[in-house]
Amino acid sequence: MGSSEPAARGADSRTVADLTEDELIASFLPLLPVGRHVLVPSGDDAAVVAAPDGRFCVSTDVLVQDHHFRLGWGDAADVGWRAAMQNLADVAAMGARPTTVVVALVLPRRTPVSWVQDLARGLGEACAPHGVGVDGGDLSAGEQIVVAVTVHGDLGGRHPVLRSGARPGDVLAHCGDLGHAAAGLALLTGGRHEPAELVGRFLRPQPPLEAGPRAARSGATAMMDVSDGLLRDAGRLARASGVVLDLDPLGRSVPEVLAALEPAARTLGDDATRWALIGGEDHGMLATFPPDADVPAGFRVLGRVCHADGADAGAVLLQGRPVRTEGWDHFHR
Amino acid sequence: MGSSEPAARGADSRTVADLTEDELIASFLPLLPVGRHVLVPSGDDAAVVAAPDGRFCVSTDVLVQDHHFRLGWGDAADVGWRAAMQNLADVAAMGARPTTVVVALVLPRRTPVSWVQDLARGLGEACAPHGVGVDGGDLSAGEQIVVAVTVHGDLGGRHPVLRSGARPGDVLAHCGDLGHAAAGLALLTGGRHEPAELVGRFLRPQPPLEAGPRAARSGATAMMDVSDGLLRDAGRLARASGVVLDLDPLGRSVPEVLAALEPAARTLGDDATRWALIGGEDHGMLATFPPDADVPAGFRVLGRVCHADGADAGAVLLQGRPVRTEGWDHFHR
Repeated sequence: MGSSEPAARGADSRTVADLTEDELIASFLPLLPVGRHVLVPSGDDAAVVAAPDGRFCVSTDVLVQDHHFRLGWGDAADVGWRAAMQNLADVAAMGARPTTVVVALVLPRRTPVSWVQDLARGLGEACAPHGVGVDGGDLSAGEQIVVAVTVHGDLGGRHPVLRSGARPGDVLAHCGDLGHAAAGLALLTGGRHEPAELVGRFLRPQPPLEAGPRAARSGATAMMDVSDGLLRDAGRLARASGVVLDLDPLGRSVPEVLAALEPAARTLGDDATRWALIGGEDHGMLATFPPDADVPAGFRVLGRVCHADGADAGAVLLQGRPVRTEGWDHFHR
Repeated sequence: MGSSEPAARGADSRTVADLTEDELIASFLPLLPVGRHVLVPSGDDAAVVAAPDGRFCVSTDVLVQDHHFRLGWGDAADVGWRAAMQNLADVAAMGARPTTVVVALVLPRRTPVSWVQDLARGLGEACAPHGVGVDGGDLSAGEQIVVAVTVHGDLGGRHPVLRSGARPGDVLAHCGDLGHAAAGLALLTGGRHEPAELVGRFLRPQPPLEAGPRAARSGATAMMDVSDGLLRDAGRLARASGVVLDLDPLGRSVPEVLAALEPAARTLGDDATRWALIGGEDHGMLATFPPDADVPAGFRVLGRVCHADGADAGAVLLQGRPVRTEGWDHFHR
């Protein structure tokens, strides 16, 4: 647990320094899915990918060892899964279907080859069920592991659903986990691996990728994925749209969420509600819908969009009172 | 020279740890061009980019501090330029025009804010003249600087030009620098900053991006950019196409290349021909054309494509004899 050295799996003790770059690539390439949208696969100067919509969505996210993941918390396949899934969620949150990812990978020379293979396996497990390929990449040596994933998606003729489209009167709703990854992280930090369900939700978040395009088809006016916690990301959506978000029915709509978190919260002396409100990395879909729209299946109504009176644009209200929407910061301490 | 700490520029001594992530982004965002192909700019969950061709080319390349660049060799703007340009060359080598890049950036907390601003300026200087935007990105703290760029291009209705299309009888030609970046690197490694022209070609390579689509329109049968040296990359093209490449007219076609390198070679006691043959990072376009095609302006004929007799597929001949086509490797030592 918590080692800063990537562990080899099984009897294979080779490190990446024992192989040429071509041999290393050959060791994991069969584990990566070729996307169903790819026209020219990786191996040339660039891949060529279909964009039947005439547009593509693109987003990039980087995971850094000891910042976004620790060796010893889960395995390399979990790192690959998370790296892929948090990116897939970004294009889903535009209302798009993910089509392809490319991956830039920095590896210390002492990294076991089996660790890289497991990473590839996790990337594939996240991508393949959605028809998404790992269709390009680059490798470099470096001092710590860095996994930079760039994801692409197709809008299927729909308008992209931006953060800025929420209008007063709209309904605010959410689909997916809330606080589960934060609970899992708290358990791991406390040296616990149970309940396995919650630990698993941190190691392998389960964003409802289908909910993004479904919300777009239902007329969602604004959408984003919740990566930094409900309050912080609700604040971003509120600021982008120039509205106030009143998390009014929250208490009525999330009891089953809290019930799933309560046992772990009691064990750790922590607060399930706090996890649900400020816990990040679940990558659920937070969306607003016109008052007369049918909120699509799987979405839980969390509140409503209110008119902003100038200075309070961007505010998030909980039980009628504005709450802090800041959160964790990568650099600032 | 050669410091492992990024130097601050001028009077601004703030580091990235002194700013919030939002403040840091605000400090360099105005320096980044918005692409003319972007429909939804960065700032939402994903950017949306036009793909009028109904396909897009995508490639990713990563630069790591002390592996691909050293602080003290040039400045951060040079790092940004190189990170962008080597990617832009990848899509040009498919015959496409680059449209947009996204950038994942890992920064130690002690990195000066002015260093990040200079990096952004260099990215912009490479991209903006080609109408390419820096239309998305991600930031993380980490132990060493990592710049991962993903580039996209539009084929404009043309077939992508692959490495695998060279046919016996075709003409082999090259457009761009050969050995200039290697000479510049050798000068810097030797503690020299003159001739500035050659040092500059290492710090800011000048790939002939227009030559890629031009070669495609002229009927190029195969193409790639030369990033790892002429012999090594010619070997890759030969293997992908299952042919032999005879670099026969090389001696007649590159004297002006060698003339530009000779003074530096004499100074360092090095060999200009070696630089031209195995020096990488110039990112010129290596292409093959049918025997009856007009080799487009700017391309220099270097040899011809020969039939492979089974076992010699992938061979590269110099003065009639096969040469080694292996080169430097990131991991293997």
